[in-house]
Amino acid sequence: MGGDFGPPVTVPAALQALASHSQLELLLVGYPDEIQPLLARADSLLRQRVHIIPAESVVASDAIPSVAMRHSHGSSMRIALELIKEGRADACISAGNTGALMGLATLLLRPLENIKRPALVSVVPHIRQGQTVLLDLGANACADSTMLVQFAMMGAVLAEEVMGIKNPRVALLNIGQEASKGPRHIRDAAGKIRLLDGLNYVGFLEGSDLLSGKTDVLVCDGFAGNVSLKTMEGVIKTFLTLMTGTGQTMKRSWWRHLVVRSMKGRLMKRFGEIDPDQYNGASLLGLPGIVIKSHGAASERAFAVAIEHAIQAVIRNIPEKISVRLDTVLARSDIA
Amino acid sequence: MGGDFGPPVTVPAALQALASHSQLELLLVGYPDEIQPLLARADSLLRQRVHIIPAESVVASDAIPSVAMRHSHGSSMRIALELIKEGRADACISAGNTGALMGLATLLLRPLENIKRPALVSVVPHIRQGQTVLLDLGANACADSTMLVQFAMMGAVLAEEVMGIKNPRVALLNIGQEASKGPRHIRDAAGKIRLLDGLNYVGFLEGSDLLSGKTDVLVCDGFAGNVSLKTMEGVIKTFLTLMTGTGQTMKRSWWRHLVVRSMKGRLMKRFGEIDPDQYNGASLLGLPGIVIKSHGAASERAFAVAIEHAIQAVIRNIPEKISVRLDTVLARSDIA
Repeated sequence: MGGDFGPPVTVPAALQALASHSQLELLLVGYPDEIQPLLARADSLLRQRVHIIPAESVVASDAIPSVAMRHSHGSSMRIALELIKEGRADACISAGNTGALMGLATLLLRPLENIKRPALVSVVPHIRQGQTVLLDLGANACADSTMLVQFAMMGAVLAEEVMGIKNPRVALLNIGQEASKGPRHIRDAAGKIRLLDGLNYVGFLEGSDLLSGKTDVLVCDGFAGNVSLKTMEGVIKTFLTLMTGTGQTMKRSWWRHLVVRSMKGRLMKRFGEIDPDQYNGASLLGLPGIVIKSHGAASERAFAVAIEHAIQAVIRNIPEKISVRLDTVLARSDIA
Repeated sequence: MGGDFGPPVTVPAALQALASHSQLELLLVGYPDEIQPLLARADSLLRQRVHIIPAESVVASDAIPSVAMRHSHGSSMRIALELIKEGRADACISAGNTGALMGLATLLLRPLENIKRPALVSVVPHIRQGQTVLLDLGANACADSTMLVQFAMMGAVLAEEVMGIKNPRVALLNIGQEASKGPRHIRDAAGKIRLLDGLNYVGFLEGSDLLSGKTDVLVCDGFAGNVSLKTMEGVIKTFLTLMTGTGQTMKRSWWRHLVVRSMKGRLMKRFGEIDPDQYNGASLLGLPGIVIKSHGAASERAFAVAIEHAIQAVIRNIPEKISVRLDTVLARSDIA
């Protein structure tokens, strides 16, 4: 039900995902009256793998999370998370209120042992032909040093397990690279991370390193991560707009248009995953279940990508991997 | 003496500025032995407007600000700021340790009445052919709601006085546009700014709006501002690198190279000021004197731009304008 468009986007996206994954079954939680008509023209074989779970309400996207949580009983978001808790679903995908999703998921599923709060994580392609795991992206506007250390460990597991990077490099996002720079909680986190056995910590990096490929995992609080990711999106959008030539100078030569289009294609091929349509689907890490947050503005294709992320997380059993890694690292190290 | 290169960059930049401004006199504070040789070949008329003020030490760029301040007596940075305090200089330009410069400037010059802490501010060109004032850029890694309100007022004065924008729009950087989003101190700041008479507050904006032109002033704490600005720089650098074609596909066609070069020129013309060489020189607002922070990595040309910013700030008497505006707005409004 969530996101800017609701079922008209999420239901067709669900059908797309079902068509691509023959093992997939989807539970669509929401208002049956709004979902059913969108399934009417679907292939009957696909329809057999879709089940509508009725909900009585929908969490408003602009609701204050604490208020939304208090009135969440019977809501589609809460029911979807309860399905995980009850073992009836392996993952939950939502384009709804991020704060409420984070709060409800934490409340219902409870963080893994040794995790204070889950973090929202996504990957960003970098210039050295790889990807950087970025977390937190907004689940925790503020994070203390302990949380940053936990984010670092979770990010490293994701880089290793999903992206196949051996001994992934981990950096803390700061406003300077020198050890003396930045607020105390980030310097404290650096001190704690250095003590961790088995974490390849490479130091502080700055906003300019989001795409530089100097690290495999970039750790920050949710405010900084959100600002950095959205700044990146805004700059890319601005550049593509300027390149596509809304200006007068570009209108005159058709060949220039062709080259611009091919260059745009080139940039998009390399940085295609920066396109929200392609990299959509941030994972909420640190819970015993899989919860994927889609952009509210996600298109049908983008929401299908978020479902794809959920499938991959289920196949790779990410929560279990994180749990095991935390136990191992913390058992060998001197910090809690 | 400051920055990555010291006198070999700052002294030639000083000579450049003197050549452009016949009324300008410059006091070069530092080690005479390092400065003098760099003036040897300068035009004798220019030399008459340069005065070397000897210093006994230099604040290390990687020193912890509080430690640097404690040992700052006799340092070039401190002496330069004392020259302002004593009325012997109108402005101070430094490429040195930002934290130390901010701390010493605050200690020696004392913030204006009604200003808790000065903020570092710069302007960023946006896609609608204008510029956005961004503050704080790193002077205060953390900022409470009162500081954010003061930043908003100072940014509005700068937009009005320096950029000539009538009734400039002011926004707070947040991780969502809805009033319920983000950490409490930012929501509190929004509440306070709304009560200000004569401030055109337009609400929360996100990182993606840094270049969108939706606001004339974008207000945030120094951590977020620094991360956003540096992310922007990093993304632009990445894009220009990709466009210039380090990749194989671009090597083959010379005509494509030509178009790329012209497009790069087009982007740089529009976003030239994003080039650190051109937009170098962040102002420390909120002090009774003019203090300009240059990038540590500034080139000769970039450092000359920072000197230019100082000259403009002196001509427009920015500190006085801010002081008057604060008195007026606060006298008419209900918040302190």
